[in-house]
Amino acid sequence: MGSMSDSSIDRRARALLSRVAEPGDRRIGRMIAERGAAATVEVIEGRAGDLDHVDRYRIRLLGADPDADLARVTEVGGRLLVPDDLEWPRQLDDLGDSAPWALWVRGTVDLRLSLLRSVALVGARAATGYGTHVASTFASDLALAGWTVVSGGAFGIDAAAHAGSLAARGITIAVLACGVDVAYPPRHAGLFERIAADGLLVSEVPPGAVPHRTRFLVRNRVIAALTRGTVVVEAALRSGSLSTAHDAERLGRSVLVVPGPVTSAMSAGVHRELRHGALAVTSAQEIIEAVGALGADLAAEMSGPSEPRDLLDLLTRRVLDGVPARGADTVEGIARAAGVTPPEAVAALGLLDLAGLVRSSAQGWALAVRTGAPG
Amino acid sequence: MGSMSDSSIDRRARALLSRVAEPGDRRIGRMIAERGAAATVEVIEGRAGDLDHVDRYRIRLLGADPDADLARVTEVGGRLLVPDDLEWPRQLDDLGDSAPWALWVRGTVDLRLSLLRSVALVGARAATGYGTHVASTFASDLALAGWTVVSGGAFGIDAAAHAGSLAARGITIAVLACGVDVAYPPRHAGLFERIAADGLLVSEVPPGAVPHRTRFLVRNRVIAALTRGTVVVEAALRSGSLSTAHDAERLGRSVLVVPGPVTSAMSAGVHRELRHGALAVTSAQEIIEAVGALGADLAAEMSGPSEPRDLLDLLTRRVLDGVPARGADTVEGIARAAGVTPPEAVAALGLLDLAGLVRSSAQGWALAVRTGAPG
Repeated sequence: MGSMSDSSIDRRARALLSRVAEPGDRRIGRMIAERGAAATVEVIEGRAGDLDHVDRYRIRLLGADPDADLARVTEVGGRLLVPDDLEWPRQLDDLGDSAPWALWVRGTVDLRLSLLRSVALVGARAATGYGTHVASTFASDLALAGWTVVSGGAFGIDAAAHAGSLAARGITIAVLACGVDVAYPPRHAGLFERIAADGLLVSEVPPGAVPHRTRFLVRNRVIAALTRGTVVVEAALRSGSLSTAHDAERLGRSVLVVPGPVTSAMSAGVHRELRHGALAVTSAQEIIEAVGALGADLAAEMSGPSEPRDLLDLLTRRVLDGVPARGADTVEGIARAAGVTPPEAVAALGLLDLAGLVRSSAQGWALAVRTGAPG
Repeated sequence: MGSMSDSSIDRRARALLSRVAEPGDRRIGRMIAERGAAATVEVIEGRAGDLDHVDRYRIRLLGADPDADLARVTEVGGRLLVPDDLEWPRQLDDLGDSAPWALWVRGTVDLRLSLLRSVALVGARAATGYGTHVASTFASDLALAGWTVVSGGAFGIDAAAHAGSLAARGITIAVLACGVDVAYPPRHAGLFERIAADGLLVSEVPPGAVPHRTRFLVRNRVIAALTRGTVVVEAALRSGSLSTAHDAERLGRSVLVVPGPVTSAMSAGVHRELRHGALAVTSAQEIIEAVGALGADLAAEMSGPSEPRDLLDLLTRRVLDGVPARGADTVEGIARAAGVTPPEAVAALGLLDLAGLVRSSAQGWALAVRTGAPG
């Protein structure tokens, strides 16, 4: 590994750790925060430092092959994201020690930008026709309004939400408890292919990994943390989807619920949340109203010490710098100021608009108020 | 009228005023508060004082016959209640100038005692099968728990609520916008007979009066004021039953709503209330929990300067005085102390229990904590 860059070493270490430790392992999270990923691997391998109860990790080193995992994810059109990547969603920091240290993603859209306006739609596997109808309708309407839908990969509400978003040509993201190349449940193989084509499959576990019961529960914290709010469409009193809502609440995200008939067991969990302070929503527009306001706050928090513009790729940042500090300009004027072609400027302005950094008007493109003048 | 008692004169004046003025008339309400009902009638008749725009009342004097109205209500098994009556529900004072000055009542149970634990169930005339099912189930469960149901007399939720209460042999009260001897809608003639037999028909307008559109709306404030809380079961966005909820809110009563499918227009008004702070309820038990706590406060407020015990009839008050200041006693012991027969003591203790003034335990009957020692 002598010829590898620090960045490659870090990425390979995180890939290995995703094979030897379970997602959400706070001990590993703390070690990575203190020593870095590469040093954490060295401790597990017994080459440095010491670690009690290391056996549970060490036993999994046998047969672990991060290079094969990285090759495999590339093979299925995916990549491994690590916190140093521009595409890494910073809002995961809110999970603290249990934050993911790497995400295996499959699909072509940008994860971080897709999540800037996103909402989780979750609910029961054993959903009723009412529940799946509402989930797919809301997801379509959210997609038409430019919002990304995030859910799991299960039957029922999850599948209906993805299908609704896909039908409206929206971006939909499935956060899986298995590898991004694994179809679980198997009947969702076709759905996952469509999601990978137009949206993203995301997982903390490496290619080929199978889901466990506990993996579904720890996965839920990622769905809650990635999005501005979680909407529970249907849930029985002991539904796993309520754990996503509780994670969202702990993280300060909006918890929204869709009312249903009080005679339906599949709405009983939803109504309990409602009585404990969740907000009722009856349309996609109400969801957007509820999370839009919070989202603005979140986005500000997400930026942390760095400005959102620092997270942009170089070309996009140049285009942002080409937008006048006061007033508006045409695409041609901005392209000239930035030294890029007009088509490049158009593509970059679209991303910047999605990120809330610029806005278009009759006078052309202008900086969004929150950004301030580029420096 | 020289031989009439003050009480009879007041009652007859209020009966007449219910014929010449519309319910909720604040001008009449203020005049009664200032001069009394009999003097108010004298002003309208032109025999004393002066009143601008009195014509609207005076024109109705022609043909008004309070003695005939009082005879008619007696004929159908009813009576006229006025604020001096023990049975008058004091919580109507919360309506201020628009409080009823008289109530025409038909049925045998005591209005004030029946309302001590009461809740309004209201909703759309064009209710769905879901709505009527929920209304009648909740009403039955409330009745089984000893709670009185109050509603209007319309098709849909109103009728389902009364039917559910009656089926569980509960006390149900219909507050009508027409006379208590008028079946409106006509198809509810049989239902109203059953309500008069086991519960109460209540109205501000005299026997024979027909309902107007505005009378339904002003009637709603009475439903809201009489009860500890109003539950809206189903309501479209522009439903009249929402006016009852808004009256309840203004009066500081609980506003409770039953969630339904977000796809149902008959739940759209309910969900809007939910999003504006109403509490969702999914069972009779949740209704009782919600209004029970408020009810205790209300009951305390309702008593005003006088103690609840001052409102009791003499025999019941003597039985209350026979309950020991500390500890408990048997029915026989209390009957002896009160100087009444044991059956009389049993009947009175039942009323006192309903009023929350005494409680029974394995040791016998004791004062409820809130009452304090009888003086």
